Amino acid sequence: MKIGILGGGQLARMLALAGYPLGLEFVFLCPDKRACAAPLGEHLCASFDDKSALQQLVGRVDRITYEFESVPAASVEYLNEKLPVYPPPQALAIARDRLHEKNLFNQMEIETAPFMVVESLDELQQAVAIIGLPAILKTRTLGYDGKGQQLLRDPSELIAAWEGINGSAAILEGFVSFEREVSIIAARSPSGEMVFYPLSENRHEAGILRTSFCLQDDPMQGLAEDYAKRLLEHLDYVGVLAIEFFQLNGRLLVNEMAPRVHNSGHWTIEGAVTSQFQNHLRSILDLPLGSTAPTGNTAMVNFIGTMPKAERILSEPQVHLHVYGKAPRPGRKVGHATLHTDDERALHAGLSKLFNMVPGEARHFSG
Amino acid sequence: MKIGILGGGQLARMLALAGYPLGLEFVFLCPDKRACAAPLGEHLCASFDDKSALQQLVGRVDRITYEFESVPAASVEYLNEKLPVYPPPQALAIARDRLHEKNLFNQMEIETAPFMVVESLDELQQAVAIIGLPAILKTRTLGYDGKGQQLLRDPSELIAAWEGINGSAAILEGFVSFEREVSIIAARSPSGEMVFYPLSENRHEAGILRTSFCLQDDPMQGLAEDYAKRLLEHLDYVGVLAIEFFQLNGRLLVNEMAPRVHNSGHWTIEGAVTSQFQNHLRSILDLPLGSTAPTGNTAMVNFIGTMPKAERILSEPQVHLHVYGKAPRPGRKVGHATLHTDDERALHAGLSKLFNMVPGEARHFSG
Repeated sequence: MKIGILGGGQLARMLALAGYPLGLEFVFLCPDKRACAAPLGEHLCASFDDKSALQQLVGRVDRITYEFESVPAASVEYLNEKLPVYPPPQALAIARDRLHEKNLFNQMEIETAPFMVVESLDELQQAVAIIGLPAILKTRTLGYDGKGQQLLRDPSELIAAWEGINGSAAILEGFVSFEREVSIIAARSPSGEMVFYPLSENRHEAGILRTSFCLQDDPMQGLAEDYAKRLLEHLDYVGVLAIEFFQLNGRLLVNEMAPRVHNSGHWTIEGAVTSQFQNHLRSILDLPLGSTAPTGNTAMVNFIGTMPKAERILSEPQVHLHVYGKAPRPGRKVGHATLHTDDERALHAGLSKLFNMVPGEARHFSG
Repeated sequence: MKIGILGGGQLARMLALAGYPLGLEFVFLCPDKRACAAPLGEHLCASFDDKSALQQLVGRVDRITYEFESVPAASVEYLNEKLPVYPPPQALAIARDRLHEKNLFNQMEIETAPFMVVESLDELQQAVAIIGLPAILKTRTLGYDGKGQQLLRDPSELIAAWEGINGSAAILEGFVSFEREVSIIAARSPSGEMVFYPLSENRHEAGILRTSFCLQDDPMQGLAEDYAKRLLEHLDYVGVLAIEFFQLNGRLLVNEMAPRVHNSGHWTIEGAVTSQFQNHLRSILDLPLGSTAPTGNTAMVNFIGTMPKAERILSEPQVHLHVYGKAPRPGRKVGHATLHTDDERALHAGLSKLFNMVPGEARHFSG
């Protein structure tokens, strides 16, 4: 069985690593010559709307999935006429656009921060008058790792912010003084089987995820699973779905969802019986889903910009290293480490040690 | 960093799967067009003594290792002049020949079964007179999975047995009525760092390993580690070394050693903090070695001949599936499953269930 993946980054790479033990092979469509997943399968080096490459992909694989949301809609439609594309294109279309996403959440009675559509500077000013400041101006599409977002604290910042997003369709979202950010990774198979991982608590720096903790027996687990279940069933979803929440006064406000494996679930490679990557593959193949039970106390730290020295990371017996094989570049996720311990105290002690190994450049960038 | 592997079977495949998270890439030299490791790296499809392929390999990688013992000695010598080949060629030369191996064990004061060199039918008869029956006639080289071995129970079987091995140089070995077979997986880096995994208890069927159990706090652990340490240091060894023992009355008699990752260590993928595959790569790169601590109760079952249905295996929440991507063939190892539980009772219950899933053909073959 061959799986076609749109994208050839670290998510595609970790999907392949999880898929070979299931007997799968992989074809990656990715325009980047140095796509870091490329050594792990066949690489079709072409743009995502290259018709001939899409045709080649269809001819070589049995199922298609993707590792990022901004796949061109026309490509997904073309592929979906020929072969099953999972997660389903309708879920992708919604997740790709913050407005569609938020409308869906509200329709499903899942709370969000207050928001308004903004299509001109005038509308931005009106929205600020209603929602108040601080607020965040977010482009409807193409946002990730804090890109396409502008925090507004003062009315004087509106013009520059509007120019900053270059007249893109946008929404203004009320700023949530959340207590913490959590996410849930869930998976659903075509037969309707669903599994939910323990919540992750996520800490961002400069808009980029820096650390995720696996939360065991968290009081918010039930509510997050309930929201995830409603979305999975409503969308007739297949594959892994990640949902990010702001937690505030015992409520969960959805921030956004990602129709794919997600950075906040990387800890599942060592920290859960079955990783999010293998469960994504199992679900798109309608195989029984694997246990999501945690295997200990686990936290993940992203390496951003540059990698720390492997020697130092590997000298820590409870740390698992994941190098993505990407060239260093400021703000780029180039690897991660998972800390896995038997008790929580050791986890926190280990994390302090791990943070001290993060290269100065990366700390500076993300600080 | 690129690693060249001589061989492209499941061991090479699992080395690659363990190596990508370290940021490594792989080139496999293997004459089999359908080498199951091939999708995981670059495949030089040529025989192991093809000079031009060996040259290409040298030009593309930084270190060389191998997944089987019968690599042509001349090829290893050639490669070792250009690049580090690990485990060291002198260890390979010894492990490849049962006589050299046993002489080394005796020199190191490590017990073996009684044995005698046999180079003619006459010598076989003399050896039987001294060692007694039952005994096993084993070719000095090219034996694996019970191949090149003949069990002798009665003097009338000697002529056929001698003809059966076609006049190969051989040894006659006294048959050991062992209580159990155990093996130890050890690793040593160039800096002299050594790690030892918990012993595996191994059960064979028709000469092929069927099941390995991770033994925790076994009373024989210390002696096995002592033997392994002596061998690793004497050989100035680098990489993973596997040593198989017969246990009898509180003694360990060495059966053989393998200068490579080993089937009886496959359980370490899920059952130890660091797998044998990653520790082999860490050691040949002189990186700090990873913890070999067990993570629970673990057993591994080989799938021989054909694979059971993935759906059935994956429906067991404590079972991890490893498909090698090889065509089915009687006697061929095509995959394995690892059962990983929190307590020993669940392990044995799970194993019974797992054995019931083994296809009839495979059970019949190996029974």
